[in-house]
Amino acid sequence: MNDTFLKACRGEKTDYTPVWFMRQAGRYLPDYQAVRGNVTFLELCHTPELCTEVTLQPIDIFGFDAAILFSDILIPMEAMGLDLEFHEGRGPVFPDPVRDRRAVDALIVPDPRETMPFVMETIGLLRKELRVPLIGFSGAPFTLATYLVECGSSKVFLETKKMMYRAPELYDAMMRKITRCTSLYLQAQAKAGAQALQIFDSWAGILAPGDFRRFALPYVQSIIRDLREVTDVPIIYFANNGATLLDLSGTAGADVLGLDWRVNIRDAVSRVGDHALQGNLDPIALFLPEKELVARVERLLDDAADARGHIFNLGHGIVPQTPPDQVRIVVEAVHRYSTR
Amino acid sequence: MNDTFLKACRGEKTDYTPVWFMRQAGRYLPDYQAVRGNVTFLELCHTPELCTEVTLQPIDIFGFDAAILFSDILIPMEAMGLDLEFHEGRGPVFPDPVRDRRAVDALIVPDPRETMPFVMETIGLLRKELRVPLIGFSGAPFTLATYLVECGSSKVFLETKKMMYRAPELYDAMMRKITRCTSLYLQAQAKAGAQALQIFDSWAGILAPGDFRRFALPYVQSIIRDLREVTDVPIIYFANNGATLLDLSGTAGADVLGLDWRVNIRDAVSRVGDHALQGNLDPIALFLPEKELVARVERLLDDAADARGHIFNLGHGIVPQTPPDQVRIVVEAVHRYSTR
Repeated sequence: MNDTFLKACRGEKTDYTPVWFMRQAGRYLPDYQAVRGNVTFLELCHTPELCTEVTLQPIDIFGFDAAILFSDILIPMEAMGLDLEFHEGRGPVFPDPVRDRRAVDALIVPDPRETMPFVMETIGLLRKELRVPLIGFSGAPFTLATYLVECGSSKVFLETKKMMYRAPELYDAMMRKITRCTSLYLQAQAKAGAQALQIFDSWAGILAPGDFRRFALPYVQSIIRDLREVTDVPIIYFANNGATLLDLSGTAGADVLGLDWRVNIRDAVSRVGDHALQGNLDPIALFLPEKELVARVERLLDDAADARGHIFNLGHGIVPQTPPDQVRIVVEAVHRYSTR
Repeated sequence: MNDTFLKACRGEKTDYTPVWFMRQAGRYLPDYQAVRGNVTFLELCHTPELCTEVTLQPIDIFGFDAAILFSDILIPMEAMGLDLEFHEGRGPVFPDPVRDRRAVDALIVPDPRETMPFVMETIGLLRKELRVPLIGFSGAPFTLATYLVECGSSKVFLETKKMMYRAPELYDAMMRKITRCTSLYLQAQAKAGAQALQIFDSWAGILAPGDFRRFALPYVQSIIRDLREVTDVPIIYFANNGATLLDLSGTAGADVLGLDWRVNIRDAVSRVGDHALQGNLDPIALFLPEKELVARVERLLDDAADARGHIFNLGHGIVPQTPPDQVRIVVEAVHRYSTR
């Protein structure tokens, strides 16, 4: 078992810098496309054998140091009683918005083992196959809420902020249910065998710092407190586009903070250096010519040299157009340059 | 003539904090909708009398301390020889991408007085009517380039970054032409009577700091150097979503730095306090109930108290759904609370 990733999460010395990529099991891989060609995205998420297969693909192909459960952050929202649809080119859609008391009252806080057995089964199957640690994950409550309130993706998040600002009690009631659901879901993943847990706050970066502190952060803190009572797996919190939120994110209670590519990792070390850090190559930097790509990887590793622990990753998910050979170049460069 | 805005730009003492809003002449105003109902967006931009009318509306209605020329950052791209279309709900579209040597060579560096006389005429008409300063503006070269390369708006800006990374000489040739066009355009606006100039770098925030320094900032610096030789009007540089770029933005040569709402303005004072600062209320905070809205405005003014000069503004353009009465509340609160 290669436990380099887990050691780095805990701030322990490692022989080299571990590396994995957000969305490493995804559309840029012909092997993934082959599986996905026969099923819808939701069918894929619901089928443990297929989830296991696509999760393993990038590990086998590139030698990443961690695997991440193939799923979607919105899967537990289905379990909360909402209709979830994925439309080609438009992303996730919830036909019925959650914007009033009736809709909030109708939200179910599900037992994850009953409503999402396919996730726990996938984790079990993966643990039998993997020789690297398996990361489980969820969305953060604020990020999940935006999809429910906006009926999907959004540009200015008008309805979510309107609810925060004009109906804070309703917002809090919704958030407490989502938080409880997420907390139970992550606990169940740990119990099923996930060896680390990442909380994705993909939309945290649309909040002013004061609003993040009031309307997003406390729910993350609550989940992590709950998790600490039942498991000691490392916890990663990733507040995307969150440079101005970094000091606040440092109070979430996580072991590791994820960084998007806008932040110089050296600055992050000086601000939240008591955490291990994960990131943060611009996913589009994978289109650099090989020599420049390797130089950028090495510079990033140098910038992270004083981190309490560094897990090399992209600053956001890999894009579907990425040539797989470029991924191999990065993984090899990270391993080679960081070997002590 | 109310010159409070100009004094604040120059870091001089003012009787109160001046205020204007990005997109203050826009769709949230019924008066604007009435004008816009009869013409397309591009027809509006091309008609000096109508541009003048909609520019004046928010000044007359709310008592803003500065007017900004009604136009669009992409208007000079038409003058460079490109087809520009605005599609309802989709935003600007350039049918033919600028991605190769042929397309870059075909770009014209236009004489702005010949190709955009309607802009200079609008400035002349406005100066006769206005009792507050008139701000002219342009897009920053990097932001303009993204529209040309991506054929419009984008999510991950793959093609722009690919050109930067894989064809840096072609990218530079394109950027030099856009920069020269922008430089001449802003010079012509100053000559026509614009009393301040704002450079909008709406997409700067998608760049890692190192890429911003290499691929965006030098072209802005070049424009501002050119401007300083022919005019002494204050120059505002707004790098949107640019918290991690702030120190670099401070080297652009501008008098004023615009801030989006993600930044705490107190932090900005500590980092680029030799500049006047403009911003930075979350546009969606305009949906707060009156009491909370006023409290937030006052807190922002307190946070900016040590700035070398503060121009109150939103952190991004006002959204069309905003109730106009909420705008009045903010303008009055700024004036009342900041009066010394």
